[in-house]
Amino acid sequence: MNSGNEKYEKLFSDEISKIEKRLDSLLEKKKPASLYEPCSYILRSGGKHLRPFLVLISAKSVGGRFQDVYNAAVAVEVLHNFTLVHDDIMDNSSLRRGRPTLHKKYDLSTAILAGDSLNALAYAYLLKDCKVNPRQVISSFTNGIIAICEGQGLDKEFERRKNVSIKEYKIMIYKKTAALSEMCCSVGAQISGATPEQIRAVSNYGKNLGMAFQIQDDLLDIMADEKQLGKTVGSDLIEGKKTFLFLLALEKAKGKDRTDLLKVSHQKGIQITEIDKYRDIYLKLGVIKDAEREIMKYTKLALENLSSLPDNDGKNLMNWLANILINRHR
Amino acid sequence: MNSGNEKYEKLFSDEISKIEKRLDSLLEKKKPASLYEPCSYILRSGGKHLRPFLVLISAKSVGGRFQDVYNAAVAVEVLHNFTLVHDDIMDNSSLRRGRPTLHKKYDLSTAILAGDSLNALAYAYLLKDCKVNPRQVISSFTNGIIAICEGQGLDKEFERRKNVSIKEYKIMIYKKTAALSEMCCSVGAQISGATPEQIRAVSNYGKNLGMAFQIQDDLLDIMADEKQLGKTVGSDLIEGKKTFLFLLALEKAKGKDRTDLLKVSHQKGIQITEIDKYRDIYLKLGVIKDAEREIMKYTKLALENLSSLPDNDGKNLMNWLANILINRHR
Repeated sequence: MNSGNEKYEKLFSDEISKIEKRLDSLLEKKKPASLYEPCSYILRSGGKHLRPFLVLISAKSVGGRFQDVYNAAVAVEVLHNFTLVHDDIMDNSSLRRGRPTLHKKYDLSTAILAGDSLNALAYAYLLKDCKVNPRQVISSFTNGIIAICEGQGLDKEFERRKNVSIKEYKIMIYKKTAALSEMCCSVGAQISGATPEQIRAVSNYGKNLGMAFQIQDDLLDIMADEKQLGKTVGSDLIEGKKTFLFLLALEKAKGKDRTDLLKVSHQKGIQITEIDKYRDIYLKLGVIKDAEREIMKYTKLALENLSSLPDNDGKNLMNWLANILINRHR
Repeated sequence: MNSGNEKYEKLFSDEISKIEKRLDSLLEKKKPASLYEPCSYILRSGGKHLRPFLVLISAKSVGGRFQDVYNAAVAVEVLHNFTLVHDDIMDNSSLRRGRPTLHKKYDLSTAILAGDSLNALAYAYLLKDCKVNPRQVISSFTNGIIAICEGQGLDKEFERRKNVSIKEYKIMIYKKTAALSEMCCSVGAQISGATPEQIRAVSNYGKNLGMAFQIQDDLLDIMADEKQLGKTVGSDLIEGKKTFLFLLALEKAKGKDRTDLLKVSHQKGIQITEIDKYRDIYLKLGVIKDAEREIMKYTKLALENLSSLPDNDGKNLMNWLANILINRHR
């Protein structure tokens, strides 16, 4: 088991290095520099690179080869970076991966245009790998982008709304996060000539993994170790975000707990000194345990899809990745 | 000749009505409304709809049918509207087609996201018509978007730069304007199964028509009748824009004329009361005549490509359109 893990860890880091190398040199010497230099700034800012890895392992899981989907893998990462650049403007964020956000480093116009260019470049890279069924692959890619836009639209709408149900929240995170991981898996499999059943299986894996990932993000924000997390614990509460934990707590709370929770959205956030109090409310109401159960539920749903796939390194990597993600600290 | 013109005028207005109807109902009842209502706001704001018409007549010119490229025609108009929404933010414009720009009517975040959604929707509509050679069609579409982004990047860069040559200006307007009309023609022909020679011919028509169109825009801005133009004559000078006329005048001017022209860029624009003075400088230096010659040159280059196409209504419409555009007043 351990030696298998080591093998997959090495494979993961080797492949991510290759993707990073491609991202580094993607826009080298491209003109105008006033446009492409800012694009490179975000592409070279690191990140987990989970989405391109999903493309690679989905290809492998259906009998395809990494080398046939490298451009598609680059495409989903470029696409992801486009959404980060525009989201950071909409959320008025100053920092991304420990560096100034693109609109802070440059200016608003540059950031909007860099995002637009990254979106177009993502299509250009995807097209390089679309040797079979391009229409189907590009449809999946496009539907993924439409979902992300709708998810971001809902997220902004929820900021303004008083009541958001857990059901609505799940639709939002599906569109904003899980639809992209679903698409990454789908595209990787489609390019590799997968059967419709295989495409369905890996897409469902990606979707459920994405749901688990997002709820775990909400959980880590309040329960993680600050040093390991790499940012302020409790940021979501400080910003007054309606997370899975918050909405579930609000559904369960009565009396003073409810009044305290309602303050978070009325006052659009809390003070850093109040975080411990709110963590205690979450613990008392049992929403931490609920979130953990939810993460396990989605992870299990993701893994169930693997049984229909052939036994190979791709499938093993999908299994390994799901386990890595459950145990992550940031 | 006249009866032919009447026929084409009617055909133009009939087809544009069909496109407008499709644009009107495109996003009806789509959710979330907070995202799609703003998208509809811009799609229902009118405009000349020349780009979708280019798709239609290019299809027809190579023996295709309008009905097979309606979705592609809608796609290029949706794409064009995406660029307008984002450009208006970058240029800090308050009005578009006589109505508040999207970011003024709603807010910045809504406008960025609406633009992103329109971009994705454009691909979705294009895909509907990509029954043959989808990879080639979508590549042309994507390259068109990349060119537009680069053109807008150059345009913003030129605002900050002191010296811009006529050659650089032409590269900018090619990318910002003519690459899109070139792409419209190319896509219309490709979907209709045109030969490589036909695709080249209609693309060149679209490109040169786009160049003529943009230089004429610069010319109309200073020489048009204000009532016909529908906006303040001399806006480009008021905003300190480096237009074809301005850059050519700067190349030719000496002494006081040159000093006066340099003031336009140093002071980032002139007063409305100074417009007559600058028009006189343009007339004296002969740049009005130069611009007229340039428009004729590009229009001729556009029309030369038609000789290799079969004689049909598509080709006749391309001829008719070029003549209409030369004689436009706004």
